[in-house]
Amino acid sequence: MKHLLTMSELAIDEIFEIIHNAKCMKAGNLPSPKENPVFAANLFFEPSTRTRFSFEVAEKRLGIQVLNFQAESSSVQKGETLYDTVRTLEAIGADAVIIRHPMDRYFESLKEHVGIPILNAGDGCGNHPTQSLLDLMTIHEEFGGFKGLTVSIHGDIRHSRVARSNAETLTRLGANVLFSGPPEWQDPLNAFGHSVSVDEAIENSDVVMLLRIQHERHASAAAADTHSYLDRYGLTAEREKNMKDHGIIMHPAPINRGVEIESSLVECSRSRIFKQMENGVYVRMAVLARALESKMLKRGEDHHVLYS
Amino acid sequence: MKHLLTMSELAIDEIFEIIHNAKCMKAGNLPSPKENPVFAANLFFEPSTRTRFSFEVAEKRLGIQVLNFQAESSSVQKGETLYDTVRTLEAIGADAVIIRHPMDRYFESLKEHVGIPILNAGDGCGNHPTQSLLDLMTIHEEFGGFKGLTVSIHGDIRHSRVARSNAETLTRLGANVLFSGPPEWQDPLNAFGHSVSVDEAIENSDVVMLLRIQHERHASAAAADTHSYLDRYGLTAEREKNMKDHGIIMHPAPINRGVEIESSLVECSRSRIFKQMENGVYVRMAVLARALESKMLKRGEDHHVLYS
Amino acid sequence: MKHLLTMSELAIDEIFEIIHNAKCMKAGNLPSPKENPVFAANLFFEPSTRTRFSFEVAEKRLGIQVLNFQAESSSVQKGETLYDTVRTLEAIGADAVIIRHPMDRYFESLKEHVGIPILNAGDGCGNHPTQSLLDLMTIHEEFGGFKGLTVSIHGDIRHSRVARSNAETLTRLGANVLFSGPPEWQDPLNAFGHSVSVDEAIENSDVVMLLRIQHERHASAAAADTHSYLDRYGLTAEREKNMKDHGIIMHPAPINRGVEIESSLVECSRSRIFKQMENGVYVRMAVLARALESKMLKRGEDHHVLYS
Repeated sequence: MKHLLTMSELAIDEIFEIIHNAKCMKAGNLPSPKENPVFAANLFFEPSTRTRFSFEVAEKRLGIQVLNFQAESSSVQKGETLYDTVRTLEAIGADAVIIRHPMDRYFESLKEHVGIPILNAGDGCGNHPTQSLLDLMTIHEEFGGFKGLTVSIHGDIRHSRVARSNAETLTRLGANVLFSGPPEWQDPLNAFGHSVSVDEAIENSDVVMLLRIQHERHASAAAADTHSYLDRYGLTAEREKNMKDHGIIMHPAPINRGVEIESSLVECSRSRIFKQMENGVYVRMAVLARALESKMLKRGEDHHVLYS
Repeated sequence: MKHLLTMSELAIDEIFEIIHNAKCMKAGNLPSPKENPVFAANLFFEPSTRTRFSFEVAEKRLGIQVLNFQAESSSVQKGETLYDTVRTLEAIGADAVIIRHPMDRYFESLKEHVGIPILNAGDGCGNHPTQSLLDLMTIHEEFGGFKGLTVSIHGDIRHSRVARSNAETLTRLGANVLFSGPPEWQDPLNAFGHSVSVDEAIENSDVVMLLRIQHERHASAAAADTHSYLDRYGLTAEREKNMKDHGIIMHPAPINRGVEIESSLVECSRSRIFKQMENGVYVRMAVLARALESKMLKRGEDHHVLYS
Repeated sequence: MKHLLTMSELAIDEIFEIIHNAKCMKAGNLPSPKENPVFAANLFFEPSTRTRFSFEVAEKRLGIQVLNFQAESSSVQKGETLYDTVRTLEAIGADAVIIRHPMDRYFESLKEHVGIPILNAGDGCGNHPTQSLLDLMTIHEEFGGFKGLTVSIHGDIRHSRVARSNAETLTRLGANVLFSGPPEWQDPLNAFGHSVSVDEAIENSDVVMLLRIQHERHASAAAADTHSYLDRYGLTAEREKNMKDHGIIMHPAPINRGVEIESSLVECSRSRIFKQMENGVYVRMAVLARALESKMLKRGEDHHVLYS
């Protein structure tokens, strides 16, 4: 069963294969269902625009039929467990299930027991492997690889497992990782990078990767005071001038304009923010095709895997 | 107009024809729209996972386009009547409408006045004919017919019209029906079966049909006390050992694990609970094809109706 | 970029072309996507049945893939701006976006900056150009043109920009416009018609166009007192008898039965209310095909524009 649950379970080979396949699909080589219809069920237990629609577009471009499950109008309201919900969708005919859920590692109770692949679209504070993969694809498109690149991650490193997961994966891939942001959000125990000042991080990075201030998760934290955050820790127009010539800006969105980043920079020539969203569709097509391999017909794909 | 509103309006011939056609579809003989597109509108005024997705999968497998109506984001918020909502969907192009609604027999105000078939996906406490049909299909698959079978129905017989409708239909089809559960939920006037103890019911049944404790409907009832319900009236592992060799377990779901049934039995070899969900898709394909007969092209179906 | 934002931006030629193309589509001449898939995203920030499903049916009949965005389960919950939401959908692959939003002229911040066409499905109190176009198509079907027709608009003229926009457009097209309704809802400065009594309006009109009392917007207004509204300002069975022989009744719906119109008249032979809904689908197909012109293949359309 080819679940996609966390980045750390993916071998380096597999990461490169997903990036490669996503690029093939971006070039127009699309697999299609062997027999119709193939069904994917999207289960989003938290609000989402990018991830939900990105998966839906990916599914529809692959010719997969989409079931959009919403917790608020489902039997979850009658106390049905996540396991029984997923088994129900499987019985009804779903061939794969995409899940975003507020509980950390919700998939532990499922992964050994359900008969269809689970694609994790975000768990708790937590893992979000397709976000990591689209970040990696965007960097790979820009620089052709990861070895020797310096990537700085800005914001709440301590509480963001995406930050830690990206730092770990980038380190595995040969990049150097810097952290920056409010001191109380740094994590001295994180072995996959070290903390520097925001100015030092920005001046030395090939990739400036901003994290979103998650007001809905740590609304009361002093560090999230939006008035001073931009000046003290964010990417201002002033700081952008000190970036390397070829340096790029990334952000997972939704963006708090004027908090993590000055609004005028969101669509500047260095920004890859909307490119990341575009790539997100191709990465999700690649992981869907991987999960549904036995049900999809490859087309025009040569499967020669490119290592950087 | 081939509405599907209640079980009692279906003649025995029609019930067998629906079961037969559902089995044909399960074997892969699918009708398809004569002209594209054919539209079905799903109107769910109450939460649902199984029924809603089962209809949606059935529609999509038949090549029918799906309109998913949600009361909370519709003009029902502005006071529009159900009749005007259905007539609107008809004017916009819906060829059939599937409705779940909290009002008992909501369809009385519609059935003579709308120009498209209504498929009842549950009314009030109430009728739920596709649930009954999938139960019947599952029993027919297992035993090849209904004559002489003993089916016990466990739970709130008095308030469940599904229970009464199933009892009536099974009796019409030649089965013997037993009721079991808390005394205050039994109905001495029900002519389609008689009440026995839970142990007697389980020992004598070919089919043990559990009803769901509907906490959301009779939350305060003493009988629904979930602590003691399993021991007193539910299907425990102990009681399961006394079932007939070939006896099967059915439940409409969502399941309250540890209340109506011991959790370990949900997926035991006797359980047909997930098979019921799977069959639900084929039964709904059959009733959709019946309602939309003039718009669908039959394929590979020989229409020889099997009587048990 | 062929946005459709307000009626006043459409030249008379364009209005006739849209009506003509909608009629071609009603006759079965449908364009289809040049390459698959083409995506339309429906963003409804307010409840809607007619407009939302009408656009969805229009999209599906044209072979366009549909993304149904709901504000309540999106990143709008995390404070994402409308601009960033639309740019996100564009990055993810939407080829056009249909928006209903409570803010008047929400599109001003978007129209110069997004790369995909915006079809306005209603803004604030506000513009609703596809509603106007379907009204015009219905009148054109009935009378073959607009010159010399008398159209009376009944209700809250002062606060309804749809009323003002329809009055302006009908005047441009050569019709005479009368207004009627509570005095405090009349607008002496409106140059595109003049106020008369309800009885005079009804006796002299080819088209009696009723506005909906929007309880959700001006709930407390004395004029909206539903008890007396019908008798004083609404279309009663009594008043209907005084209509011209060929006069027709229109209403945008949802209808407050017994307020703007006596319930028995809703489906009388003069009523075009459900015909309006049916035409709404074809008008929306025409404006979608217009917005997505470069991505759609015309079929059987001769583009000879009919002027009235």
